[in-house]
Amino acid sequence: MNFSSKLIEDSVNAFSSLPGIGKKSALRLVLYLVQQNKDVTKEFVNTLAQMRERVRTCNVCFNIADSELCAVCANPRRDASVICVVSTIREVMAIEDTSQFKGLYHVLGGVISPIEGVGPQDLHIDSLLERAMQPQTKEIIMAITPTIEGDTTIYYLSKKLMDADVRITTLARGISFGGELEYADEITLGRSIITRTPYKTGE
Amino acid sequence: MNFSSKLIEDSVNAFSSLPGIGKKSALRLVLYLVQQNKDVTKEFVNTLAQMRERVRTCNVCFNIADSELCAVCANPRRDASVICVVSTIREVMAIEDTSQFKGLYHVLGGVISPIEGVGPQDLHIDSLLERAMQPQTKEIIMAITPTIEGDTTIYYLSKKLMDADVRITTLARGISFGGELEYADEITLGRSIITRTPYKTGE
Repeated sequence: MNFSSKLIEDSVNAFSSLPGIGKKSALRLVLYLVQQNKDVTKEFVNTLAQMRERVRTCNVCFNIADSELCAVCANPRRDASVICVVSTIREVMAIEDTSQFKGLYHVLGGVISPIEGVGPQDLHIDSLLERAMQPQTKEIIMAITPTIEGDTTIYYLSKKLMDADVRITTLARGISFGGELEYADEITLGRSIITRTPYKTGE
Repeated sequence: MNFSSKLIEDSVNAFSSLPGIGKKSALRLVLYLVQQNKDVTKEFVNTLAQMRERVRTCNVCFNIADSELCAVCANPRRDASVICVVSTIREVMAIEDTSQFKGLYHVLGGVISPIEGVGPQDLHIDSLLERAMQPQTKEIIMAITPTIEGDTTIYYLSKKLMDADVRITTLARGISFGGELEYADEITLGRSIITRTPYKTGE
């Protein structure tokens, strides 16, 4: 594309260097900013600059945080007896969105993957073991996607947690609520028969 | 969405305030920046801030420019006898991308639209008339999309340019190169019969 302006060209390249933004979308964004008051761009860049400068990870659970503790760990009303182990902060956000979990989190920072060269030492596992050993910890939920790497990670963690006096659980698996049987994949449907649960009225 | 970080939330809102970027895409962009080195965000915001601060419109043709004259007007090899009139800088970019036009531009800044309250006084028309009166100007190409507003604008301009000693032309209309007859819309096909051109070998 021919921009007849180095400034515009640089900004288009800056936007299109972000994931999922092509040159055409980048140009649309740049022209939008040009057409708005200068303050719009100023506020936009200040917000991003401040975020990147100040954002950090929680000292306890490695969730994203604005200060030493994340909003979850800093909340005294959260149940410190349950720790939900996830691989990334995206899962924290997804679980928080449900408003169903009142415990704390532990963000591993990935899963064990020999192919990608990620070993246990690259993840926040030692700190999880320390937290598991604390007397208030009663349950650890493995909320990790059950891929080969995920299952390996759960297995590794459960071995390491054997000495800790905690209950280890995983998320319930089965057919989605509202999901039709005929569209469920075979493995999910098969396992949901094996792990069938007692019928309760109102469930 | 629940971000457990005000900094992240603010940045997601900043991105999703841009046109065509939803909350999910915004979150993906913010998490990308968080995962990169701080310099990536710094360079991104500096590029945008500098662009918005320094970008301006050309003193002559109102194209986007880095200094008093845009790259086209500042280029002594462009043909100053032909002025291509467009409504926005997007059309300048589109025409420049073809590398087929060697003349200069004039960006009106929109089209006459009574419904949207855009009158001739809101567009860069006086400056176009001045340029048309200059002795070196021989031809004015109306490269304006032929909507009702576009046609009104072309008609208004051609009336205003009657006293100027310039040839007024518009872009050729017809079936796209490589376009199949059966898929051309009726108006385009009908007019392309009426405005048929002599056959030349090699065209």
